[in-house]
Amino acid sequence: MELIGGNVIGGAYSAPGDVTFNATDPSTGAQLEPAFAEATSADVDAAVAQAEHAFRTYALSPSEQRSKFLRAIADEIIALGAPLLERASAETGLPMARLEGERGRTVSQLRLFADHLDEGSWVEARIDTADASRTPLPKPDLRRMLVPLGPVAVFGASNFPLAFSVAGGDTVSALAAGCTVVFKAHPAHPGTSELAAGAIARAAASADVPAGVFSLLHGWSYEVGLSLVRHPRIMAVGFTGSLRGGRAIFDAAAARPDPIPVYAEMGSINPVFLLPSAMADRSAMLAQGLAQAIAMGVGQFCTNPGVIVGVRGVVFDKLASDLAAQVEKLQPGVMLYGQLRESYTNAVERAGAKSEVLARGGSGDDALRAQPALLRTDGAHFLADPELREEMFGPVSVVVAASDYMELERIAEALEGQLTATIHGTAEELHSHARLVEILTRKVGRLLFNGFPTGVEVGHAMQHGGPYPASSDSRTTSVGTAAITRFARPVCYQNFPEASLPVALRGKNSLGIWRLVNGAFSREDL
Amino acid sequence: MELIGGNVIGGAYSAPGDVTFNATDPSTGAQLEPAFAEATSADVDAAVAQAEHAFRTYALSPSEQRSKFLRAIADEIIALGAPLLERASAETGLPMARLEGERGRTVSQLRLFADHLDEGSWVEARIDTADASRTPLPKPDLRRMLVPLGPVAVFGASNFPLAFSVAGGDTVSALAAGCTVVFKAHPAHPGTSELAAGAIARAAASADVPAGVFSLLHGWSYEVGLSLVRHPRIMAVGFTGSLRGGRAIFDAAAARPDPIPVYAEMGSINPVFLLPSAMADRSAMLAQGLAQAIAMGVGQFCTNPGVIVGVRGVVFDKLASDLAAQVEKLQPGVMLYGQLRESYTNAVERAGAKSEVLARGGSGDDALRAQPALLRTDGAHFLADPELREEMFGPVSVVVAASDYMELERIAEALEGQLTATIHGTAEELHSHARLVEILTRKVGRLLFNGFPTGVEVGHAMQHGGPYPASSDSRTTSVGTAAITRFARPVCYQNFPEASLPVALRGKNSLGIWRLVNGAFSREDL
Repeated sequence: MELIGGNVIGGAYSAPGDVTFNATDPSTGAQLEPAFAEATSADVDAAVAQAEHAFRTYALSPSEQRSKFLRAIADEIIALGAPLLERASAETGLPMARLEGERGRTVSQLRLFADHLDEGSWVEARIDTADASRTPLPKPDLRRMLVPLGPVAVFGASNFPLAFSVAGGDTVSALAAGCTVVFKAHPAHPGTSELAAGAIARAAASADVPAGVFSLLHGWSYEVGLSLVRHPRIMAVGFTGSLRGGRAIFDAAAARPDPIPVYAEMGSINPVFLLPSAMADRSAMLAQGLAQAIAMGVGQFCTNPGVIVGVRGVVFDKLASDLAAQVEKLQPGVMLYGQLRESYTNAVERAGAKSEVLARGGSGDDALRAQPALLRTDGAHFLADPELREEMFGPVSVVVAASDYMELERIAEALEGQLTATIHGTAEELHSHARLVEILTRKVGRLLFNGFPTGVEVGHAMQHGGPYPASSDSRTTSVGTAAITRFARPVCYQNFPEASLPVALRGKNSLGIWRLVNGAFSREDL
Repeated sequence: MELIGGNVIGGAYSAPGDVTFNATDPSTGAQLEPAFAEATSADVDAAVAQAEHAFRTYALSPSEQRSKFLRAIADEIIALGAPLLERASAETGLPMARLEGERGRTVSQLRLFADHLDEGSWVEARIDTADASRTPLPKPDLRRMLVPLGPVAVFGASNFPLAFSVAGGDTVSALAAGCTVVFKAHPAHPGTSELAAGAIARAAASADVPAGVFSLLHGWSYEVGLSLVRHPRIMAVGFTGSLRGGRAIFDAAAARPDPIPVYAEMGSINPVFLLPSAMADRSAMLAQGLAQAIAMGVGQFCTNPGVIVGVRGVVFDKLASDLAAQVEKLQPGVMLYGQLRESYTNAVERAGAKSEVLARGGSGDDALRAQPALLRTDGAHFLADPELREEMFGPVSVVVAASDYMELERIAEALEGQLTATIHGTAEELHSHARLVEILTRKVGRLLFNGFPTGVEVGHAMQHGGPYPASSDSRTTSVGTAAITRFARPVCYQNFPEASLPVALRGKNSLGIWRLVNGAFSREDL
């Protein structure tokens, strides 16, 4: 499977500019071929112009065409076979088994959205019928549904080179909504990105969707991405990555003459709260589960449990030492790229200097591998030092010993917005800690009981996103079918004749979708 | 009904600061008593602290308590009787009949949201049930619903002293969602605001809702409002007013360490497109309807039709002269406050110098009354001069003669985001102009056929809001029941025991709401 190294604009490779870069195999430090051309400003303009032109027709395309397109993308991803996974593994250091699982997730995500389109109720159709006899004024006929926002810029995440990259969650939900996508590839896996972009281009052709519906742009520097965000024809942005990167994009979008929505998922420390019985009754099991969650994917998950809080005492110390024993058994792992490993090592060093280092995994750090770690501090320190509450992206967690339950609640209250929080205990304990649940509900997007936050289920009821800085828009999710509404807005048609109404809003409900008719859900014709 | 002139913080009047201001009767220029105290920064802090404290309990209050509260507000507004309308009329220059209608709208809006809460499905409950036997990993139980955002800042609009002010649309939808509200009164009608705030305070007491759920702050300067927007405990903002004001608030919110959503409805020029048969078949009727819409409320509606576009020719000239004759018959009217009248007069003068003045209403401008006007220009000028496409808030419209239908489409394409656009013609014409509908759908929140955009229906299917600069968040509406979701965000509970789940998500669907269970809508128990 030959790689070209160019930008893919509306299904064709653009003439490369002067600036190129190569990917690196993080497990060896070796440079990977070919070189990839950084997109020029002409490339950005061309991609957006194609996206805008394609939007005119794609936005009006029937749901079944879009679902066919999404299914075709899934098939084309599978058809890429082992070379896709091999290139992804070379560019990310992630093992083949993990990437095989991630490909499964990517493909089933595409098919889930296709099913969602086929079902069709996502457009939130609402119809208030007319009443000509109403006084003092007759009541008009109003029909409202979601329509796509326009061309969308999506940024690939480094940590999911398939499921949150080119054909990943943001792209899929935008395409499902009827938006067109200009995709900024993550510079750490340009080859994987090119392969996936080819799959999308072939799927567009086979589903008879305009080629401009998707373009891929490469860029090592921030400039390509920011020029996309600032482009007057881009109408929304999807991003998964660091707080710094996400905030820069958010700021650029907010400073536009016409601000646009930014859906940036920027990670979090995913606190885990241990109630007494959990520590007393199943310390060893809990320690094992936590260590696994900390180490999973070399800790490179947005939902990695970065802080573990309990009230100090004998059972807490036992849990901490059980967990330390587990972390010691963990092996150093290859991180996605060198910079990430450096940031991780520095962050752990800084935090370790302010706390007690309970454990370090494996036989020591090396130039390419990141060493798992477990730190411990007390509640007072944790509350006093905001740096201890910052995300350290990698396989590390801070165990926090609260002086009493009141302090544990204060710790919960001091947290910034989080993707998740987890409580371990008995059902009775949870019920009697309703105040902790109330505090955490204000802080998070997802609240788990007796589980581990890693492993984000892709379904209808998932919420992946939380109050800032977990994400830039807590009203939305980047995982699950509800992600589609990020790329749509309502339009209301007043007194429109049947023939000019979108099919979803006509008297005959030929799509069989759920509609809110005069305030009541119905699948009937009017 | 005695007015105190103070800020109302959690149901009690605060000690007034040193800075005060008076309202003015715009129909006479006379100063109205009493003086109102500008909120101090201590007032802002106190109001937000109360809002935050009250939020802890109010967010968890059952729907029926909130709906009782909203109905009690409606009753208390009615109980204020004529003095409320008299004070509003004195402060705004709006006639009593209009204010009586607006009170009706305010009250039925409160009751509509109460009904909406009683029905209960607005929380968008989604349940994906567990599957312990799934491989490779068991499927968790996920339950997701909307929860309120937190304390909200709402800014009163000048042009709806009741329906979009203290107890108006933004307040009602925020309170319905379970948010608490700190309200920044519009300085042009502080007395009306104080009366309505008293009604809310009495309703809170009678519905057993914490007093801190609502506070009223006065301020003539921008500072009070901006300090609210910047307050770390405020989680969202509702605003209706000018583009300048809305943008300043948006920018302040986006620049926060933790940006918050701003729902600013900032007006628009609401273009009306006349297809040939509409002008040929019913020129006189159309002219009458348009003149009425232009003059309604002295043109002080966000949905005022500010531009009327058709293809030039005999029927277009006839329509223009019919409309000019109607506009000439209109009388000058008192605008809401002096500054507004001055801005209006200046804007019409500037635009008039660049176009043809077809008509001026009544016997001439005076120091207190604004004179209706009708301007005419051709398509080329309208396309070339962005200033001609800017909103002139008041009773004026620009008739635009396009050289041909292609230019009419270019005019549609050149428009910024709009609250509404209207097309007049036959159903057959509309159907054959699908491209115009496609263009306008990208530009607007509401698309009308053979109607007038003024008179915004409050219902389930209304969309009031459009692409920027019509509003700062085109994904939302500020009118109708869908407005409630602006003040909520989803939270997902994973593997939570029944007793700790919110009632809306429990196995037994005791609220009888519609829930998306494993992808299908249902009102059944699990």
